[in-house]
Amino acid sequence: MSRFLTEQKEEVERRLPGYVAHLDSPEILVKAMRYSLEAGGKRLRPILLLATLEGYGVSLEKGYDTACAIEMIHTYSLIHDDLPAMDNDDMRRGKPTNHREFGEAMAILAGDALLTHSFEVISKSPYLNDMEKAKLVMLLAQSAGPKGMVGGQVADMEAEARDDLDVTELEYIHHHKTGDLLAFSIEAGGILASAGEEERLSLRRFAKNLGLAFQIKDDILDVEGDAEKMGKPSGSDVTNGKSTYPKLLGMDGAKEKLNWHIREAKEYLLQIKRDHQLLHELTDYVASRTH
Amino acid sequence: MSRFLTEQKEEVERRLPGYVAHLDSPEILVKAMRYSLEAGGKRLRPILLLATLEGYGVSLEKGYDTACAIEMIHTYSLIHDDLPAMDNDDMRRGKPTNHREFGEAMAILAGDALLTHSFEVISKSPYLNDMEKAKLVMLLAQSAGPKGMVGGQVADMEAEARDDLDVTELEYIHHHKTGDLLAFSIEAGGILASAGEEERLSLRRFAKNLGLAFQIKDDILDVEGDAEKMGKPSGSDVTNGKSTYPKLLGMDGAKEKLNWHIREAKEYLLQIKRDHQLLHELTDYVASRTH
Repeated sequence: MSRFLTEQKEEVERRLPGYVAHLDSPEILVKAMRYSLEAGGKRLRPILLLATLEGYGVSLEKGYDTACAIEMIHTYSLIHDDLPAMDNDDMRRGKPTNHREFGEAMAILAGDALLTHSFEVISKSPYLNDMEKAKLVMLLAQSAGPKGMVGGQVADMEAEARDDLDVTELEYIHHHKTGDLLAFSIEAGGILASAGEEERLSLRRFAKNLGLAFQIKDDILDVEGDAEKMGKPSGSDVTNGKSTYPKLLGMDGAKEKLNWHIREAKEYLLQIKRDHQLLHELTDYVASRTH
Repeated sequence: MSRFLTEQKEEVERRLPGYVAHLDSPEILVKAMRYSLEAGGKRLRPILLLATLEGYGVSLEKGYDTACAIEMIHTYSLIHDDLPAMDNDDMRRGKPTNHREFGEAMAILAGDALLTHSFEVISKSPYLNDMEKAKLVMLLAQSAGPKGMVGGQVADMEAEARDDLDVTELEYIHHHKTGDLLAFSIEAGGILASAGEEERLSLRRFAKNLGLAFQIKDDILDVEGDAEKMGKPSGSDVTNGKSTYPKLLGMDGAKEKLNWHIREAKEYLLQIKRDHQLLHELTDYVASRTH
């Protein structure tokens, strides 16, 4: 598993610049887009898509365009989240955030450009037929838009003004803010493998639990993690007064909930009559990762 | 013509709320999206698409989803352009701008949501087949993204720091900042009418000239126009020290250039073996409009 993970992370990073480097656009815009797109990170979303494809025995070549499009959307969301009007973060992955490097206006536009360009990348992929393109675009727009990621971000902002959030509300936020795009990564693999509706539903439920597990682990790492490995100071959620799983459930309760979602995720995975060994291992990785 | 224009503006405005009002999203986000989407305006882009369809004798019903998607993209671009980090405008169409009403963070997210949602609207339109969806998504992403509208906006920002802009550079900015989305509106009509490659090229060239004419007229109106009709103070470009056609060419030169592009536009339109009477009349409207 870890070999697949490392190899595919490298492959995705090798390919990412090619999608933006030669754009016929103002140089500074391309520079700002690349700055954040090539800033590293786990590349978890592309890897989830590729691991799903691998489980179905579909050529990975078919998935790289969509995998990189997802990473563009993820990157745009980080750029906009970091803005002064939002989280006002100065550092991301050990580097100044996009607006600290290029100014606020350029950061807004670089985010807009990455978001828009991701749809071009999918819709002109030579490895996809028109039906696949139409399905992927619709599901991606749903997962990233007002019903999905952007909706989750708004709910998160609304929640920040309150300190009486309960676990159901916290779950709603994470389900949309991070869960929907993670779920898309996995369901997109199902679409590219021509999986049936029922199987795609199992994939979605698997992904939903994996996504929540991922977020709970993030919250746990924020308290217990190594600042250097995380690329940001530990305990920053507490300092910012954010509602987190450890805060609402205690550290033991948070860890219990993490394990419950990991078990649920694996059960849904078993409903699929395919050897999704890599997705099993990725699920374990989410539970045990140290950054 | 003016009847088609009035009727279709009303029809588009009747339909627009339906695309966002029932979204399963935080209420405040839907409110912020609707605030700007329903703030009026000429609805020129949807009307250009519908007028093109009408010229081809294609049912307008086939075009409304795409027409409204374009208006969402146009609206998102206005919301982001108005932000404090960009043009820092307080008023738009006689109302406070989105960020003045909902705050900066919500305005950024409402823009992101409208942009993303527009792709969902096209990709799930029941009137389009998968080939049409894939073509429209690709062309829209190209027209609105880093090679198109966003690229033009960046070039415009870069130009603001200089006062030695020439007409070619000014043209580049407008060609992308406003021209590409106008061109998409018209070419999309061609796609929905199954126009051939050559005919789509004529449509694009027509649109390119129409778009520049539109922008030159905007600059002229900023000097000569009626502030109340425009919904913004006249002379604001001069106050902001912006490079405009009247500034670079003088008022007579700007008017001459406007007429040249109107003539060019009409010549390309005549290359199409279709009675595009409405597009002819819309071209005259662009030249003679008073706001």
